[in-house]
Amino acid sequence: MLDATLAAIRPPDDEAMAQARDLHARLTKPAGSLGVLEELSVRLAGLAGTCPPPIPQPGAVAIFAADHGVHRQRVTGWPQEVTAQMVANFLAGGAVVNAFARQAGASVTVVDVGVAAELEPAAGLVQARVRPGTADLSAGPAMTLDEARAAVEVGIRVAADLHAAGAGVLLTGDMGIANTTAAAALIAAFTGATAAAVTGRGTGVDDETYQRKVAVVDAALRRHQPDPADPVGVLAAVGGLEHAALCGFILGAAARRIPVIVDGVSAVAAALAAAACAPAATAAMIAGHRSAEPGATVGLRQLGLVPLVDLGLRLGEGTGALLAWPIVASAVRVLHEVATFDSAGVSEK
Amino acid sequence: MLDATLAAIRPPDDEAMAQARDLHARLTKPAGSLGVLEELSVRLAGLAGTCPPPIPQPGAVAIFAADHGVHRQRVTGWPQEVTAQMVANFLAGGAVVNAFARQAGASVTVVDVGVAAELEPAAGLVQARVRPGTADLSAGPAMTLDEARAAVEVGIRVAADLHAAGAGVLLTGDMGIANTTAAAALIAAFTGATAAAVTGRGTGVDDETYQRKVAVVDAALRRHQPDPADPVGVLAAVGGLEHAALCGFILGAAARRIPVIVDGVSAVAAALAAAACAPAATAAMIAGHRSAEPGATVGLRQLGLVPLVDLGLRLGEGTGALLAWPIVASAVRVLHEVATFDSAGVSEK
Repeated sequence: MLDATLAAIRPPDDEAMAQARDLHARLTKPAGSLGVLEELSVRLAGLAGTCPPPIPQPGAVAIFAADHGVHRQRVTGWPQEVTAQMVANFLAGGAVVNAFARQAGASVTVVDVGVAAELEPAAGLVQARVRPGTADLSAGPAMTLDEARAAVEVGIRVAADLHAAGAGVLLTGDMGIANTTAAAALIAAFTGATAAAVTGRGTGVDDETYQRKVAVVDAALRRHQPDPADPVGVLAAVGGLEHAALCGFILGAAARRIPVIVDGVSAVAAALAAAACAPAATAAMIAGHRSAEPGATVGLRQLGLVPLVDLGLRLGEGTGALLAWPIVASAVRVLHEVATFDSAGVSEK
Repeated sequence: MLDATLAAIRPPDDEAMAQARDLHARLTKPAGSLGVLEELSVRLAGLAGTCPPPIPQPGAVAIFAADHGVHRQRVTGWPQEVTAQMVANFLAGGAVVNAFARQAGASVTVVDVGVAAELEPAAGLVQARVRPGTADLSAGPAMTLDEARAAVEVGIRVAADLHAAGAGVLLTGDMGIANTTAAAALIAAFTGATAAAVTGRGTGVDDETYQRKVAVVDAALRRHQPDPADPVGVLAAVGGLEHAALCGFILGAAARRIPVIVDGVSAVAAALAAAACAPAATAAMIAGHRSAEPGATVGLRQLGLVPLVDLGLRLGEGTGALLAWPIVASAVRVLHEVATFDSAGVSEK
């Protein structure tokens, strides 16, 4: 399934992009006055292969949840059981991502791709656990290559299912206590940045924990020497199951030529893996926001993506992607609905 | 009416703000993980005087349209008739502000406070023209003190009417060919910045026009020596009718304790005038976005406001305010809908 998905990813359509640029020049607004939204809408025309591209709605958030063996290295102050507790909170509609999704009108799907606790079946929960949490990436590979590939394929399948159910845009979400440690290791592996440059305070760790976290990431990189040309291998060595699934989710969107709004640092780590699998997949990626985690900025720079929102969020769950979605839809709507100088009888300069 | 409005503006409610901060600490998210959205929601609790404050909806954009005598100084490449043509475009639903408003679900009201052309009555058009465009601010006062005050009161009345019709948040919009010249002069007058520091290229003027525009602003400031302690006098000397009306619109929101999302450089100029009239009015102001016009950043800094969106827009109309609105609503919704650690059974650090 991964190979078929990769084979389906095509570069953007230059003709549709040229049409979108031409249309922008004729709309009733000064040239360039919508700033980065103009190029964003042009990119989405290229992705869809048509101008105007579809307005990206309805929106569907998928929250990939998993646990992390590296938790035992005390890289966070939160107990591991919070992953499963937050899954229950998402399913009950009580988390920030739910509030933001209601505001925006997006659906929320929770995917257990590797939670280390039993979860009851529930509406809105996809049970696709590959293993109950990773192994400790500082002591050995986080998972096997087969497990990493299986998790990637969970993400591909969720993207396909949400698209088949009508979603016009996918939004990445994630939950996993300690997952910013794995995200930092992934970003370092794919960008060549140092552990110190990409490791942040996650949910807000103290100085001592932060130093330990940097040391854990640094040691993992030295131990595994992950090869960015082998993205599944990198995911297996230092990733999380949710990062692997998010990689597949992004690739699945790209293969279907629908945009995927990338949330925070875990999603950026997965986006780097997806771009390493298929460079053309970046055409489907929209950076929702700039996470406060430093690794997110390092990763976005390598991907060539400029975040739409920069408000100091560091929550994950898909919250930053949801804030960006109305902006993306607004940018595309311009190409559908704004009158031209000719049609509106407005004089030009 | 202005005096009664100013008398109704009260400082924020410290008790409601303290309640909002306390509530944030108990919600199922790491402390501070929503970045600037947390303090934004706290501010809105203070404005409303209750925690949680109302979710700021429905949203109503008012586009104040007017012409400018300084147009004859060739400070823009656009003909003056474009103001009236764009009013027709707004009323027909064909402008970018209409597309953004449909995406967000906001109403759009157009207010003729000083267009220099005959306009037919139309649904969605408030005819409240104080005079058909200002006089050339580089040759004398833009308008009389009575006219400035009348325009301010148009804005107060529009705010009152939209609030009475159910709006929970007001969004500023503006249209007026050459109005960035007046906006720059206002911002310089209220902040003490130089003409060069606050004058931008508006819709995108060439170098020669830009130099002329800076010189016009500089000469106007030297001629009028506007006194920032006399905001109506500043508006009369170098403002536009839409700036005066926007000042009243903002004051009207503050008097009713509902938030007003400030759009671009013209709205920032008006917000400075409003803050000069009533410093406590800043509690009602939310900076929607950072306009590409340099004066907007200078003005926001003086107001102590951090823009929510920064995407290089320089269109006006209310477009930047509309992009920010869902973010504001999301921030407030958190205080209504997110579960506490206790209620959701989620372990704390």
